[in-house]
This record gives sequence, C-alpha cells and structure tokens, in this order.
Amino acid sequence: MHVTHRFAATFVDELAAAGLREVCIAPGSRSAPLAMAFARHPGIRVLVHIDERSGSFFGLGLAKASGRPVALLCTSGTAAAEFHPAVIEAFHSRTPLLVLTADRPPELREVGANQAIDQARLYGGAVRWHFDPGPPSDDAGGARAWRRLARRALAEAAGPPAGPVHLNLPFREPLTPALGELPEPEAAHLPRAVLTGTPAPGEQEVALVAEALEKAARPVLVAGGMRDGARLAGVVAALAAAGVPVLAEPTSQLRLPGTVSAYEALLRDESWAAEHRPDLVLRVGATPTSRPLNQWLAAEPARTVLIDPDRSWSDPDVLAGEVLRCDPLPLLTAAAGVHRPPDWADEWAAADRSAAGALEEEVRAGPLHEGAVVRSLARVLPAGATLFVGSSMPIRAVDAFWRASAENPRFLANRGASGIDGLVSTGLGVAAAGPGPTVILLGDLSLYHDMNGLLALRRHGVRATVVVLDNGGGGIFAFLPQAAHEDVFEDLFLTPLGLRFEDVARLYGLDYCDVRESSRLDGALGSAIASERSTLVRVGFSVEDSVRGHRACWAAVARVSRSGRPAGPGA
Amino acid sequence: MHVTHRFAATFVDELAAAGLREVCIAPGSRSAPLAMAFARHPGIRVLVHIDERSGSFFGLGLAKASGRPVALLCTSGTAAAEFHPAVIEAFHSRTPLLVLTADRPPELREVGANQAIDQARLYGGAVRWHFDPGPPSDDAGGARAWRRLARRALAEAAGPPAGPVHLNLPFREPLTPALGELPEPEAAHLPRAVLTGTPAPGEQEVALVAEALEKAARPVLVAGGMRDGARLAGVVAALAAAGVPVLAEPTSQLRLPGTVSAYEALLRDESWAAEHRPDLVLRVGATPTSRPLNQWLAAEPARTVLIDPDRSWSDPDVLAGEVLRCDPLPLLTAAAGVHRPPDWADEWAAADRSAAGALEEEVRAGPLHEGAVVRSLARVLPAGATLFVGSSMPIRAVDAFWRASAENPRFLANRGASGIDGLVSTGLGVAAAGPGPTVILLGDLSLYHDMNGLLALRRHGVRATVVVLDNGGGGIFAFLPQAAHEDVFEDLFLTPLGLRFEDVARLYGLDYCDVRESSRLDGALGSAIASERSTLVRVGFSVEDSVRGHRACWAAVARVSRSGRPAGPGA
Repeated sequence: MHVTHRFAATFVDELAAAGLREVCIAPGSRSAPLAMAFARHPGIRVLVHIDERSGSFFGLGLAKASGRPVALLCTSGTAAAEFHPAVIEAFHSRTPLLVLTADRPPELREVGANQAIDQARLYGGAVRWHFDPGPPSDDAGGARAWRRLARRALAEAAGPPAGPVHLNLPFREPLTPALGELPEPEAAHLPRAVLTGTPAPGEQEVALVAEALEKAARPVLVAGGMRDGARLAGVVAALAAAGVPVLAEPTSQLRLPGTVSAYEALLRDESWAAEHRPDLVLRVGATPTSRPLNQWLAAEPARTVLIDPDRSWSDPDVLAGEVLRCDPLPLLTAAAGVHRPPDWADEWAAADRSAAGALEEEVRAGPLHEGAVVRSLARVLPAGATLFVGSSMPIRAVDAFWRASAENPRFLANRGASGIDGLVSTGLGVAAAGPGPTVILLGDLSLYHDMNGLLALRRHGVRATVVVLDNGGGGIFAFLPQAAHEDVFEDLFLTPLGLRFEDVARLYGLDYCDVRESSRLDGALGSAIASERSTLVRVGFSVEDSVRGHRACWAAVARVSRSGRPAGPGA
Repeated sequence: MHVTHRFAATFVDELAAAGLREVCIAPGSRSAPLAMAFARHPGIRVLVHIDERSGSFFGLGLAKASGRPVALLCTSGTAAAEFHPAVIEAFHSRTPLLVLTADRPPELREVGANQAIDQARLYGGAVRWHFDPGPPSDDAGGARAWRRLARRALAEAAGPPAGPVHLNLPFREPLTPALGELPEPEAAHLPRAVLTGTPAPGEQEVALVAEALEKAARPVLVAGGMRDGARLAGVVAALAAAGVPVLAEPTSQLRLPGTVSAYEALLRDESWAAEHRPDLVLRVGATPTSRPLNQWLAAEPARTVLIDPDRSWSDPDVLAGEVLRCDPLPLLTAAAGVHRPPDWADEWAAADRSAAGALEEEVRAGPLHEGAVVRSLARVLPAGATLFVGSSMPIRAVDAFWRASAENPRFLANRGASGIDGLVSTGLGVAAAGPGPTVILLGDLSLYHDMNGLLALRRHGVRATVVVLDNGGGGIFAFLPQAAHEDVFEDLFLTPLGLRFEDVARLYGLDYCDVRESSRLDGALGSAIASERSTLVRVGFSVEDSVRGHRACWAAVARVSRSGRPAGPGA
C-alpha cells in the first residue's frame, strides 16, 4: 500500500480517536486520499459541500453549536482561499476548526502546474497553529508522527482559546488507492494530549472584585456574547438579586429574569443615561453590540474591570483599568456575596419594566419592522430551540427587543468578525448539530450572500426555519449618516436586491411564507417552526417603516422613563 | 473638510488620471469615504456588488477582457477575505487589479472592535505589492503623497508582469462628509509613471532559436494560454507555413488555419504519439491543459526552449533546457525564417485532417456530450465574440474539440489557478467589457458555485449567454481513477446538484432553454446569442454519455490515424 494512503487512513483514525466527529469536504482530486479515508472511517460523519465557502461556514456552525472541533477539507488552489472568511470568523469567535488543505508536492509548486498556488500560511495570523508536514514519507517517523500530528492539531484547535488550525498537506500521486487495496490505519502507542482549562483566579483577583463592589454605589455587570455563558446563569441571577443591575446581550445567554432587557432603549435617552451613570462596571464576554450602551460606558468612564479569560482585550474604548485574565465564575460568585442597598437596582428594574411595556405597546401599534419579528420569535420559540442571528440589523434588533425570560433559546451568531457572509451555512451547521429546532434570522442581503448554503437542507437532510427580514436592502445604512447623502445612498448603500424570495424557496425546495402584517407573525412563525419541513419565512416591510418604527419605540421609552423617574436636580 | 475626505477625493482623482476606469464596490461603512469619492468622480464607472466574492471576480473579468486595471473596494473584516480567491487568480493569470480594503485605524485593532481583523498582508505573497499607508493625515505628505500612492499602485498592478496590488486603507471617523461639504481633489504636480515593456531578446537569444530550428528535423511549437496571443498570429502562421507543426490551445488565441487542432485526440493514441516524437519543442504561454499533450512531451524529453517573458517557469515536468525570458515575437520571427523540408509538417497536417473529420463524424453520430456543444459553438459564434470557458471539463472540451478557424472568438478563462469558483462573475465581467457578444461555457457545479454572480445581469445591465454543461455533477471525475471506487464515487466526487436550472433562470431573470439533443444545439445556441436578452442554455446529458461519447471520439481518431499513417517498423 502506497505511503499516501497509509498516512491518510492512520491520520483520520487518530483524529477520530481524539474526538473528531464531523468533516465538511469539498470535492477535488488532490484531496482524494483524505476524502476517501474520512468516508471509510466508521466514526466520522462526512458532509460534502460543493461551494467551499458554504462548506466552511457550515462546519463553523456545527462547531459553534457542538463546542467540538470540526474538520474542513478541500483540494489545492483557490478552493483553499474560499475557506478564508470562515477561518477568520472562527479565529475571532474562538471556534475550534481543523482546516485541511490538500496541496501539490513541492516539485509541482512555482512551475505553472495546474491548481498550484502558494498555500503556506494562507490564512496569515488568523489561526492558532499552521503546519505543513511535507508529503507523507516513511523516512519521517511513520505512524507515530502521523498520529501525533492529528492529536496535536486537534489539541491546538481546542485551545484555550479555541480556534482554527491549518494543516497544509501535500500529496504525490497516486491519489487514489488501487481498487481492492483498502488502507488500514497503522497502530502506534501515543501519550494522550492533556488539555488546559480556563485559568482560575487567585485570592488576589477574587478580593479585588469583592472589594470593588463593596466600595461601589452604582455598579453594573455588562455581559457581551459568550457561547458558554449559560454556565454563569446562577451566579448572574444571584448578582442581580444582590442589587447589581445586569445588562446582558442575548448572545451572552444571560438575558434572564431579573436582568435589564431594555437598556438599549433606555440609554438612547441622553438625560436618562446621564442620570444613571455607573461607578463600577464589571464586564464579561465580547464587546457589547449596542452603540448607545458603548457610548454610555465611554461618556464618563467609571472604574471598569474586564474579566478576560480568552485574553482578547475586548475594550475598544480603552475603559478597563483592571483586566483579569481568568474564569469569571469564581470572581462573580465572590461579588454576589456582597450585600448592598437595593435603591440603585430598583431604579433600573422599574425603568426596565416601564420601558419593556412601552416597547411592547409601540411594537404592537406601530408599523411592521425588525422589532416585531424579534418579539414574535420570543413568544413562539419552543424550549430547547436555537436562534442563529445574522449580523447587521438582526443582531441589533434581538439586543434591543428581546425581553428577559427564563425560557430563552440558545443565541448564536457570527460576531467574531461580524461579517454578513456565510450566515445561511453557519445557521444550517448549527441546525445540523441539533438537538432542538433552529431558527435562522437574517437580513435580505445576508440571505442572498450565502444563498448557495441552502443546498445543505436537501443534501444533508437538515431542517431549519429561515426568517428573512426583507427591508429592501441594506436597511442598517438608513440609520447611519450615509442616509443623508441622497445622490449615492441607494446605489452605494441600500442596494436593493430585486429578487423574489419565493423563487429562492422554489429553487432550494423550502416551503415559503410571506408575511407583511405584524398580526400574522406569530401564526406564520409558529407553523414554520412546528413544520416537519424547512420553511423560508419572508417578512417584508419598507426601510422607511423600519426607521419610523424604531424611532417611535425609542420615543415611547423616553416618554415613560422620564415620567417614571424621580425628579432630579435638572428636571 | 476632514482629511479623510480630502484624501479620498484626491486619491480617486489620481487613479482616474492614471487610467483607472472601473471600480467594483461592495457596500459597507468603513469604506464609505472612498465609495463616495468614486461615485462622485465623473471619470469612474462604479459597479456595486453585494457579494464581495462575485464582485471581485467580476472585476477580474473586466480586467482580463480590457487589459486595464480594475479596482475593487470593500469594508473591513471578512469582506476583505472574500476577495482572496479572485486575487489569487489575478496573480497567477497576470491580471491587473487594484484591491482596496478599508480598515479600522490602529487604535481599533486587536481590541475586540466590530469587524476588526488583521488585514495586513491578507493575501500573502499573491500580490505584486502590498502597502498600508496608515490613516490619512496632513502630517504625512498630503496631496503629493496621496497622488503618488495612487500612481504607484496602478503602475505596480500594470507590471510586467501585471497582477493584483493590495492597499489596506484605515479610516477614522467621520466616514461620511458633512452634507453639502463635497470634497474637492487637491492638486499636486507629479512625475508620470514610466512603465517598462516586455523585455526584447538580444542577438544571442534570437540566434539560439534560429540555430535550434535549423538543427531540428521534427520541431513543434506548443502554445499555451495567452491573453494577448493574437499579436503572434502572423508569425505563427509563418512558422506553420515554414514547416513547424503548431499545437495551439484555443486560449492561446492561435488555433488558426494551418495549426494542428486535433492533437489532443491524436496523442491519446500511444503508438501514434510514439511515432511522432519531436526533437525540438518551442513553448510559449502557460503550461498546456491537455494531459495527453503533456505526457507526450514528457515521455522522451526533446530539446525544449521555453519562452517566458513573465518569468513564470511554467514547466512542471522540468523539460526546458533553455529558458528565454523575453518577448516571443522577435524570437519566433527569426525561427519562421528558417526553411525546412515539408514532410514532418505534412504528416501532422494529414493526420489532423483525418482526425478532425473523424471527430466531426463521431460527434454528429454519437450521444450528446461536451464535444458536441463546443463544435456547435464554433459554428454559431459570430465574429468578434468572446467565449469565456470554465475550468474542469469545459476548458478540456474546447481544447479537444475546437477546430482551427480564421474566425475564432476570443477565448478567455480562469486558468491562473484553475478554480471552479467565481466563473459566472468573471464571465459577466468579460461581457461588461464588451464590445462583442459573450458566451460563458460552464459546468453545472461551476454555475452553482457562483450563482450569486448572475445578479450582475440585471444590476449592471450586462447581456450574456450562459451555457451550462449539465452532466449531473463533477463529470470530470468519471474520467479519473476515482470513478472505480464505487462505494464513495457519487457522494465524494460526482456530487449531483439536484437543482432545476429553469428555477435559477427564473430567479435571476434570464430566458431559459433546455437542450437534450445534438440536433437542437445550433438553433438554441444561435438564438440565445442573437437575442437581446440574456439566456441560460442548459445542455443536459448523462455522465455515462459523456464518458462514452469521448471514448468513441478517441477510438475513431485512433482508427483513422492508424489507417492513414505509413506502415512503421512495428505495424
């Protein structure tokens, strides 16, 4: 048996032994040795994608949802570059991916050979580890080296912090084994990799947080995106009960009863924001999405403690005076033990109740827009569901309109690099990981950008509900200063698609449902989610209604928060 | 006026002065300063694309067809990585592209800011030049430095060799100028860039080629892909007339009367190939696509002279003993002046006539497959047309089945890196460059891979005929050893799409035409090309028919070439 095929069988066998379960493969010739070894290994699920870009985002979604590394495999050439956007998102969102790019051997590089490009360090610094072991050879360690390579690649991808690992794997011909000569994995005794966990804080760090909280009169906890934020649910509830307002973005998995859900709307009112400045900010998770929240935090910087186990320094406004690079759980547990008067927290809670009521009322009475869809999803999503949220408007609408609940879905998003690319595929990868139903909430441009990804529904038997917020193009720009430049606004920024989404549904075999009235949302979304089949739900409204509806919501919240608050010195 | 907007207006003004005519822009916020400056410059045509991948390939096609540099512009984050595959193709195909990626300023990098990734050297070594000038500042040279940057970037992209240039351009807020404050370009006197041409050969090189040809009894000229190969048409005709068989791939633009068009079929017959070994090979252009041709050249290496003005060393089989890094025109002119007996060339010409007749007959009588479509296109394409040919099967079918003609279309392809990605968009970029009609010949998987690209038809008023060779998936693999591995062949390699192309046509607003019989090809293709509207012509046949039809063609050629040749020692 040729060394290439012995390598492939052995390498794949060790990946399976080390916990790999899924590989997304794009068809190709140079990658055939590994593709065949994956397909013939009983422990590996092979998912074939024709568009490498979609395939890589699908793998990313699988890995985000499962927390386990997923492998990608493609042939040489531009196919490998198609993985680049997903690799960048994986790097920034700390998602474990094992990226395997087949390559021509060195003698076929730089000499005009077909599909030969320079694949060394193709993803630059956006990987945890890159290595090119050269073509498989019996002169270079054999099975022990091949198994160590597999084991180490997965360990580096697992982190912490988790992320993408790139192995560039050159193969010489023959690329397929002779028929009947099926390669067997070769045995080799290997020590098992030891993974390091999240660093625990020492006594000093625990004391720092407790002491800061004791001194503070107006503390808040700000929780940004965290895939595994649910593990903090108990301690965050305790902290809220102990008098610390918790401002938790849905993707933190912590927008639970007792937390403030309407901060985005409240902090848009400058006078309310000014009267409720904190004197201590504890931050966990990614940089918050909400611009009013970030502006409020930056306006008169309070003492800010950034809890940063992944060493990401997520603090673009340079507010953190203390950066604690350790597990937030023991730190927040200590903080929750500090007892404090309830006035500050009560004020936030009262404002939040009024604001939430005002939003509810305004969304019901006003025009259909993103906020209405978010509130409808909150009503109809069953327990155990996952909501995969697109970048741009959807993530902001979920942040602004999702009301705290004990029955939240899991919120996932591509907020590492916040691209609008690959979102359909990432969502379908999430759906493929299961177990609950998955709803993918996207803008119209995002759906178009990764429309190819819809092929996975049929090809891989994935079921999902795709909800497209069709505001006629890049609606988010209508909220930005660009909108005033009418000579170029539509052509450069709004860029309406001009596609009929029912044609998209027909092409890819989804059921289709068109909603243009708020009153039909619950019924349409509920049926789609309950259906055995995948449905594309298009919610159509104008960008003018979106802007008008949002502004009416902020005005309504400002009205109730002003009328409800105690008269301050300037009131 | 803010320095950012003065920079943008001045930089764009100098690009226009230096010859830039088109920019492909993807919507975004960080890129707004440049996007607005481009849109407001009267000398620049702005083409907005929502999917950066499609947009970058569209720009690549424009540049390939026009020979002029085209600019790409996107916002920060994964958007910039979406350009990567097209950048690689541009690098390897020597296509001038100016890639402009907007970026966050340094203070917003590595700190968890939205859409901030590491964009430095994002495309690795696949660019002619990379530079990041930092955020625009009046402390750094002002208008003179901005104009020089524009001028130099275009000069580096123009080469030689031409290729992509990457400028990473960080911008601070405000990203849009205040309304009414339209920036004016700032004047600055600059020296004009001096472009270097293709290096001319010296007397020594000219003598080497002439002398080699004088000594040779069995010389051939092998011409691979060359965008500007048409300039060699006269000298190649002279060379053919002087007794040198010319084996010219269609993408060399040199498959003209007098050249050998059936070499792919002839050389598949091992005995014919063995009896017609050359003793001198002159090579121009890219590495040939045809595997039988490459195997014949490598079997018993003859003296090989590689004429390589782009310094690409396109010689994977290490056959070239002499590499001449200079313009082929004067070299071949010298070679064409060498007189020689006609027998060798006559033998090739006779075999080519017999083979072409056999192919014609077999294609007409046999099942519908790629070859029939190629021969039909050769009949119906009007003068001045461009045929953009997909990678994988289409490029091989055109090579094998296109008969030499004085009325060839221009042949373009993405054969730098030979990806199957971005082909729809590249073809539509070619069509947008005009002037003649454009036919895009693709496989079904390639059409799917870049289906998003079809949006450009409506958005940019492009007209093209898209011909999809629908052989039910990755038909090329049926010709490779993978096909014998029946347990994994369909899932890993054939990967049939399961999409109805009439649904694709409906979605993107093309007329649709379905062809399943050879007899309908000329009519269907002729009408589609003559139509005012864009048409998707699906030619459907089974992969079995494709394999069977091709094999029947090779067998027919082998029959006539054997019967027609003089009896050799082993016959």
